[in-house]
Amino acid sequence: MTAVGIDAIEIWTGNLKLDLPGTFAPEKGEDPEKYTKGLGLNASSFPDSYEDIVTMGANAAHRLMERKGLEPDDIGRIDVATESAFDNSKPVSTYVAGCLEQVFEGDFHHANKGERKFACIAGTQSLDDAYNWIRAGRNRGRSALVIATDTALYARGDAGEATQGAGAVAMLISEDPNLVELSAEQGYGSADETDFLKPNQQFPSVDGKRSVQVYLARMREALKDYESVAGDVHEADFAYAPFHTPFPGMVRKAALLAYRHVIRDTTLEDDLADEIGRQPRPEAFDTDDDYRDALREYMDLLKETEAYQEWYAETIDPTLSISREVGNWYTGSVHVARASALKHALENGRDMTGESLLVASYGSGAQAEIHSEVVQEGWEDEIEALNVDEQLEDRYDMSWDDYEEVHDVHNHDMDVDVEEFTAPESEFVFDGWGRMGERKYRYVE
Amino acid sequence: MTAVGIDAIEIWTGNLKLDLPGTFAPEKGEDPEKYTKGLGLNASSFPDSYEDIVTMGANAAHRLMERKGLEPDDIGRIDVATESAFDNSKPVSTYVAGCLEQVFEGDFHHANKGERKFACIAGTQSLDDAYNWIRAGRNRGRSALVIATDTALYARGDAGEATQGAGAVAMLISEDPNLVELSAEQGYGSADETDFLKPNQQFPSVDGKRSVQVYLARMREALKDYESVAGDVHEADFAYAPFHTPFPGMVRKAALLAYRHVIRDTTLEDDLADEIGRQPRPEAFDTDDDYRDALREYMDLLKETEAYQEWYAETIDPTLSISREVGNWYTGSVHVARASALKHALENGRDMTGESLLVASYGSGAQAEIHSEVVQEGWEDEIEALNVDEQLEDRYDMSWDDYEEVHDVHNHDMDVDVEEFTAPESEFVFDGWGRMGERKYRYVE
Repeated sequence: MTAVGIDAIEIWTGNLKLDLPGTFAPEKGEDPEKYTKGLGLNASSFPDSYEDIVTMGANAAHRLMERKGLEPDDIGRIDVATESAFDNSKPVSTYVAGCLEQVFEGDFHHANKGERKFACIAGTQSLDDAYNWIRAGRNRGRSALVIATDTALYARGDAGEATQGAGAVAMLISEDPNLVELSAEQGYGSADETDFLKPNQQFPSVDGKRSVQVYLARMREALKDYESVAGDVHEADFAYAPFHTPFPGMVRKAALLAYRHVIRDTTLEDDLADEIGRQPRPEAFDTDDDYRDALREYMDLLKETEAYQEWYAETIDPTLSISREVGNWYTGSVHVARASALKHALENGRDMTGESLLVASYGSGAQAEIHSEVVQEGWEDEIEALNVDEQLEDRYDMSWDDYEEVHDVHNHDMDVDVEEFTAPESEFVFDGWGRMGERKYRYVE
Repeated sequence: MTAVGIDAIEIWTGNLKLDLPGTFAPEKGEDPEKYTKGLGLNASSFPDSYEDIVTMGANAAHRLMERKGLEPDDIGRIDVATESAFDNSKPVSTYVAGCLEQVFEGDFHHANKGERKFACIAGTQSLDDAYNWIRAGRNRGRSALVIATDTALYARGDAGEATQGAGAVAMLISEDPNLVELSAEQGYGSADETDFLKPNQQFPSVDGKRSVQVYLARMREALKDYESVAGDVHEADFAYAPFHTPFPGMVRKAALLAYRHVIRDTTLEDDLADEIGRQPRPEAFDTDDDYRDALREYMDLLKETEAYQEWYAETIDPTLSISREVGNWYTGSVHVARASALKHALENGRDMTGESLLVASYGSGAQAEIHSEVVQEGWEDEIEALNVDEQLEDRYDMSWDDYEEVHDVHNHDMDVDVEEFTAPESEFVFDGWGRMGERKYRYVE
């Protein structure tokens, strides 16, 4: 069976940067380590006044198509995943196609355009739609363009404000991909949860504590469901495990839980038993509370073991490097984590061809999905072509006043204009409003 | 290759009815025929105060699962298509699953839940996602539940007010389906258009004239694209051709255009030439205007021919019967048209097994998709099980005052309570707000 997967990837960051320890923490009167150590974040990416989900998505897609030498006729579908849509009917993918038609010859009239919404997991769901479309033999030799784009902004003063972010990831899904092949096997954990909502509102209402519990519970279900079709997962099976990263601290919790799950009933559990005991089993306890206390104690010990720390440093930590500098990109976040991991491999001269990744996506509301990917032999060229470091370096570092101003610009309930902080170059920009209240876009050379 | 398609379908109408010639027209001081003849509509379905996209979708899905004897474990994905979502992050499918878990044993934690948005075409896109998922071999023997649900309401006084509607269609997508097999071949016509928008607003902004032009232009493109993969379409190939039906008058225009296209360069065009001449060809005219004038004249004549009128009466008119009584259901509309057609066949003792349908979906913004379906031998049982006539008959016929009140109830910007007009029975109802502003639901025995 021909491999189907991600052929190429592009990352586009918002052009502004909010320094969390340097600018945000002092203003809030907080210890900078609350952000750098607690959340695991150094900065967030923020959209300049001329940026939004369309410009970032179109810019990522444009760069990807240019780099790969693609024409509109090579693309059979454009799927956008977002939870920052500004229209309840017209999909973002039509705006993105409209932008791209300004710079490419030909058009995308033959391409199926779509939009998916499910908090942060919709990017992975769109990847699956593209995979299934090719596997179903409906692609006529063409590829799919999947774009995960979000402005993950919170109301001023909200607890989530420190985890903000804005950026887009564009992915090309093809037969015989250069980057990774996707597994047919998938595991799901999905429940009707009220942890993160935007009921008729732009900025989210979040129950932070519940959201962490739900993330972990759904991930556990998805992992079990994945194992039911793909066989047991072992900690050494995967070179990296990119997780959805609302903030790196969340992934630290999830990774420990996943590690405990996969070493259970293995020789590794036995090997560690001398040091920290075996894992508590529910049947050995009189009450649930006793069991949970024992579990917590075991986890605290497990976290300190050399085995776990090595695994975490090798398999998880490298997935977080970009996220630390950009915050939460919602639908793009897990795809940024995959790119971080492969970038780490490239920078460390690791041969990844044929190696596997365990990819764990999540969306509040709530659903987790787990699948695996096998790295393809073109991966080095694809990852080498990323210019994410330059993009991050080039961001304008906002003062607190700048931040207050530009947050208002992006608030749909406010009508604020502000001079842009950066000069757009070779990119699509927001260009004002049309006669029906639609957003208009223009390419700046 | 195993057939994949729609195994079963259920329709759930909003419980209220607005009589257009009897109640709406007099209040507007308009000739009732403006609605019955012009738009082709007798009434619209409207949601009672306890109904919304979740209750209607869950009720349709519940009836479908009960009738087919399905358990949650039989369902591998729940996809909702809507352009009436009330949350910018959490998908409607999670609420629907939450409802269904109140009445079924077991849960849907293993099911992939999704939400698609692209004006009225997202229902068909979700059907495709389900088809592709099964064809890709990822369904583990399970079926997909696809739900198209909308409250297609307009601002009071808007030109679209007469075309309102509210209802849901639930479809079960399976291998070896009872109702119709979907073709692998699809044609697309898709462009970045500004004809119908909801920019950060609940009710649409519509450019009605443009919307009609865009509908026709995208349909023409989709038909050509379909023919490029499936071969030329002839007027006699299809027993029925269900179109997206914003109002039946729109389909009248589209059908004539489609008919002209498919008879071009056929013996039928030659046969009609004595009566109305051959179709104008652009190369025979000095200016575009002259060509368009000649085309208009030809279309006027074509519409009056016996050949066209017979074809329209047999192939198109039967698709409109439910729509006339319920108005526009947005994402559900083309699926209501398919059901109308098959209901017509059943009522007229027509043997449909092995017959083909040409299904033409559309969403503003804008995109058309055309595919074909082959009716399967279980179709009669499936269509016989529909209780749509009873549902339509049972609706409460609103007075003008009732209508004004209940429109306000559904307006997100108003905070109005009103006594319900109907007594819910064996259905899910809206049950007030939760602590994070989420909508809550309850099953009424």
